Amino acid sequence: MTETTPNHTQTVNGWAVLEANGKITPFVFKRRKTGVDDVTIKIIYCGMCHTDLHHVRNDWGITLYPLVPGHEITGVVTEVGSNVSGFKVGDRVGVGCIAASCLDCDYCRDSQENYCDKVQFTYSGIFWDGSITYGGYSEMLVADKRYVVHIPDSLPMDAAAPLLCAGITVFSPMKQHNMLQAGKRLGVVGLGGLGHVAVKFGKAFGLHVTVISTSPHKEKEAKQRLGADNFLVSTDLKQMQAGGRSLDYIIDTVAAKHSLGPILELLKVSGTMVLVGAPDKPVDLPSFPLIFGKRVVAGSLIGGMTETQEMMNLCGEHNITCDIEVVKPDYINEALDRLGRNDVKYRFVIDIAAGKSML
Amino acid sequence: MTETTPNHTQTVNGWAVLEANGKITPFVFKRRKTGVDDVTIKIIYCGMCHTDLHHVRNDWGITLYPLVPGHEITGVVTEVGSNVSGFKVGDRVGVGCIAASCLDCDYCRDSQENYCDKVQFTYSGIFWDGSITYGGYSEMLVADKRYVVHIPDSLPMDAAAPLLCAGITVFSPMKQHNMLQAGKRLGVVGLGGLGHVAVKFGKAFGLHVTVISTSPHKEKEAKQRLGADNFLVSTDLKQMQAGGRSLDYIIDTVAAKHSLGPILELLKVSGTMVLVGAPDKPVDLPSFPLIFGKRVVAGSLIGGMTETQEMMNLCGEHNITCDIEVVKPDYINEALDRLGRNDVKYRFVIDIAAGKSML
Repeated sequence: MTETTPNHTQTVNGWAVLEANGKITPFVFKRRKTGVDDVTIKIIYCGMCHTDLHHVRNDWGITLYPLVPGHEITGVVTEVGSNVSGFKVGDRVGVGCIAASCLDCDYCRDSQENYCDKVQFTYSGIFWDGSITYGGYSEMLVADKRYVVHIPDSLPMDAAAPLLCAGITVFSPMKQHNMLQAGKRLGVVGLGGLGHVAVKFGKAFGLHVTVISTSPHKEKEAKQRLGADNFLVSTDLKQMQAGGRSLDYIIDTVAAKHSLGPILELLKVSGTMVLVGAPDKPVDLPSFPLIFGKRVVAGSLIGGMTETQEMMNLCGEHNITCDIEVVKPDYINEALDRLGRNDVKYRFVIDIAAGKSML
Repeated sequence: MTETTPNHTQTVNGWAVLEANGKITPFVFKRRKTGVDDVTIKIIYCGMCHTDLHHVRNDWGITLYPLVPGHEITGVVTEVGSNVSGFKVGDRVGVGCIAASCLDCDYCRDSQENYCDKVQFTYSGIFWDGSITYGGYSEMLVADKRYVVHIPDSLPMDAAAPLLCAGITVFSPMKQHNMLQAGKRLGVVGLGGLGHVAVKFGKAFGLHVTVISTSPHKEKEAKQRLGADNFLVSTDLKQMQAGGRSLDYIIDTVAAKHSLGPILELLKVSGTMVLVGAPDKPVDLPSFPLIFGKRVVAGSLIGGMTETQEMMNLCGEHNITCDIEVVKPDYINEALDRLGRNDVKYRFVIDIAAGKSML
């Protein structure tokens, strides 16, 4: 890498997996000097996304090692390049999933950088200079200004971190499919990192929210802790049938293979369901509930930068944050294990500064 | 039946399957007297839809016997009820898939009778009076006026018949998803009864049309006979990859189980694919092409009565008809066999009058 990236001169402490099926260990690496369009950030918190776990395990066969995961990053600006006017030293900022895109295609020009076919992600991607991207499980990040957003003063830096991925992942389709209408009926499938934020967006915008889950024991927390209006156990056929044709929209956050049929039946005619989880095997789509209800199944991938800033501002106004469990860096491996068992309410966030003494 | 339907006094000659896995045989049955809202029709032609074959074979386990199939019906009005003002004796008319609906729900009031949850179909359904509905493989039909449309004078009665199901099935989603825009790029998966009409609608409205098929030998007919602009062999990975992100819309007419992944990849970001075939097993929906392209998979079921009449009128204006092979009633069993092998270009239509001597 030294030949292709001679300007990678900044030494960074982080945490990485060095090979497939490895454990997270302390890892010292280099980042580029702050370029003219760059914003350099002292990382304070980094959320732990289910995608981190997929990459650590190389579930999708696309992991580049060494892997420094993390794309739910909040921190403070420590340096900016000469072309940067939107950020200054001391600003509270966030970086999500995107490290680079072509800047020149229809999608980039429309700030749908997430759909640019040259998009590169914050970790396990290839940056413009040919280097592997390293994520937020580290003390410092150099990011192109186009992929940095401001964190409103009213939001705490720890509970805001997961908004950079979990938040925008559910907000973007809710906005694009015009779901944020008071009085409409929203279903949220899966009550994890993504699902619990979808419930919060729904309630903040005045929707009637039904949580659909395989776990009956989540009913109480869905209703009492998150304010959901209704709860359906997806394995209870009677409940599911009683809920038929009752919902306008559904956000399906489940990352495991599952059948869409029983869930689709909950939608009214012309209702829309958006998949934001990414099961590694194809899901079963029965044609009858799709066709007989003129229903729509759409996909959505994180969000563009303009709408990420818009979401952050709305979260600031509506006081929407994630419910988190803050952990220290030496707990990352255990946290990943627990994440694999969905044993977290609802997002682990790494207190990066607490790792200083461990490096 | 005589007790619940004492007014079924009109004797009709038709063709029916009397039991599961049976053959089509001549069948004499009763239809109701022409009621105040009814239109009685001398059937001239009836198209043979793939759904007829599914019902003959009881593929979906929902067939009611005796089964008189047929829901692509054209004919001439011979009697109308006292409340009927839109039709008169001698009118050229058509009846499609719908025999009854509740008339009172949101969908019925919006002329989306096809999505009424009490909708009953033209055959193997239960009419308001409790009787089993019998379809168009017969010499006469009594239909409620709400489910009858006019056939424009410019359309031949034989080639217009399949428009009542195949035509409206592809037209409705094309209209609802705003596909009928000149210059847009449409893909049509499967070149059968539905697919060939979708190509014709696409070309009539000035779209660039790509046919996607498993059969390389269909390229010539797709282009020369139907005017398709492009042809992709769906099993040719290289062709399919080269076509990636090139289409605005896709109409998928395939009724067999298949994976949507390679087809979805043909869509641009935010592109929409509509399933109108009804595979009896769930299709495979891989999440990655859906999510990474923000794509949409929608279902659609035939169409409502207002849009069926609108389609008929447009077909009259644009001279859109189906390519058909006219057969006599004594050929129905052989035609069904050939339909099962997709050995027809592109729709069998039964010349009902030719059956007179056989009964």
